[in-house]
Amino acid sequence: MTALVGCLGGGQLGRMLALAGAPLGVRLRFLDPSADACAGDVGELLVGAYDDPACLGRLADGVDAVTYEFENVPVAAARTVGAVPDPRALDLGQDRLVEKDGPLDENELAEGIVPFERELSIVAVRGRAGETAFYPVTENEHRGGILAVSRAPAPDARQREAEEIAARLLDELGYVGVLAVELFEAGGNLLANEFAPRVHNSGHWTIDGAETSQFENHLRAILGLPLGVTAAHGSSVMVNLVGKLPPLERLLSIPGAHVQLYGKEPRQGRKLGHVTLVGASDEAVAEAIALARVAWTV
Amino acid sequence: MTALVGCLGGGQLGRMLALAGAPLGVRLRFLDPSADACAGDVGELLVGAYDDPACLGRLADGVDAVTYEFENVPVAAARTVGAVPDPRALDLGQDRLVEKDGPLDENELAEGIVPFERELSIVAVRGRAGETAFYPVTENEHRGGILAVSRAPAPDARQREAEEIAARLLDELGYVGVLAVELFEAGGNLLANEFAPRVHNSGHWTIDGAETSQFENHLRAILGLPLGVTAAHGSSVMVNLVGKLPPLERLLSIPGAHVQLYGKEPRQGRKLGHVTLVGASDEAVAEAIALARVAWTV
Repeated sequence: MTALVGCLGGGQLGRMLALAGAPLGVRLRFLDPSADACAGDVGELLVGAYDDPACLGRLADGVDAVTYEFENVPVAAARTVGAVPDPRALDLGQDRLVEKDGPLDENELAEGIVPFERELSIVAVRGRAGETAFYPVTENEHRGGILAVSRAPAPDARQREAEEIAARLLDELGYVGVLAVELFEAGGNLLANEFAPRVHNSGHWTIDGAETSQFENHLRAILGLPLGVTAAHGSSVMVNLVGKLPPLERLLSIPGAHVQLYGKEPRQGRKLGHVTLVGASDEAVAEAIALARVAWTV
Repeated sequence: MTALVGCLGGGQLGRMLALAGAPLGVRLRFLDPSADACAGDVGELLVGAYDDPACLGRLADGVDAVTYEFENVPVAAARTVGAVPDPRALDLGQDRLVEKDGPLDENELAEGIVPFERELSIVAVRGRAGETAFYPVTENEHRGGILAVSRAPAPDARQREAEEIAARLLDELGYVGVLAVELFEAGGNLLANEFAPRVHNSGHWTIDGAETSQFENHLRAILGLPLGVTAAHGSSVMVNLVGKLPPLERLLSIPGAHVQLYGKEPRQGRKLGHVTLVGASDEAVAEAIALARVAWTV
């Protein structure tokens, strides 16, 4: 089999989709307004506007499926090319999902009036026949509104409850592909905050720390292939590299560090790569965070 | 860091080098006489003869290192571009290494007069500063002279003895990069048969089954980066897909199967891909072998 997948957006998520696709004989073609789009290193890059009919036509020409890698893609464009997941997920993705019938008021929560103990997320995938699979719940720590560290499986997380929240969403949307739900844990409850209808930063640890990565499973799902096992290999910690890259030599000298750079120019607040440690020592994790933290404060 | 590595040969080994390089910001440029060279999907492909000075000049232009992915590359060409590992390994790689002072006669062994119990191999890597790392010994089963199944770590293998054989070779050659030594186990002894001065089919399981793949470690070594951990995640079985591909859906429905297709046209006796199972059930392994075996008999 050789399959071709079109993708609206050519950033790091697209890049990692392409790297996950290559071993399966799946090639990626990206549409992105920037000629520097980093996915262009590992797939075909069409440079153009998302709402340009000619570009959309070229993107969809001869492909087995079209998908998207960011949720601000124009819904009309996604519909034009018959994107999977169904573009109606894009309409809904930005709505906050905090349950209205809980002990908590969503506005109070969103505005920080009600404290939450931690931020979690669950990455889930649904195939074309409706089959689903769920990754272990991930615990996320943000700095300045940007994901800094993810730990998976999140200790003492309510896995089944999180899966039920994600499953309901997947089924209601008739969703096909990978979806991530951001959750708050507060007062002993899990509250769905919002979801992203795509592969997600909090699922990057799955490349090195799970049996099948979120990227491979997204491709399997949209191409109608069997879903892969979502089990974790052990405890993973993913550390984002934001704004400025530490020296590669330093990162690679951390025992067991898996480095993923996105090929993007450094810029404050920009996600440039990540490091995942699987079953690593506390010292190794601390070292990775110390190296990354330098850039977080830039 | 963004590095560029030139590679003589653009087959599946080059392809997997490119896929291992992308996350580290390492891009590959290949020289291959065939415009269909499968590494061209994931890197820059120069089509031309290995001994064409103009092609060699373009290959080496602006690169951080040049390497090779098969041992029949013309030694003069490898020297012209300053290839790593040092091309003298190419001169020696084809010589049989069976120790002349053992209990056994090398000619008798080579000609099958002396039976051996099993075929093993060890993949090793040596960095620019002389540091070494060794993967667990692998047990290899051939069909019709082509590797069919590898199991790693090989049960009851003399790991330390194999490492000593490889270490001696690495140090004697002043080698930089990944090297594989094929070994016979006979009469309770380990006998080095021959070595390949490159990444090796019997090390493909390291992509999914080891902390750092042989491909990543080769790139780390030739670029002077710290070597990665070579420990195995568990027991791996790698099954080669030769001659004809089983349906991808069937392969992907085996729990925990990691499929790697090379993007090559089917042809009798041609390596088209492989499947690796890590810590998988006997049933899953049997299923993968059953699917692959169909093609072995073609």
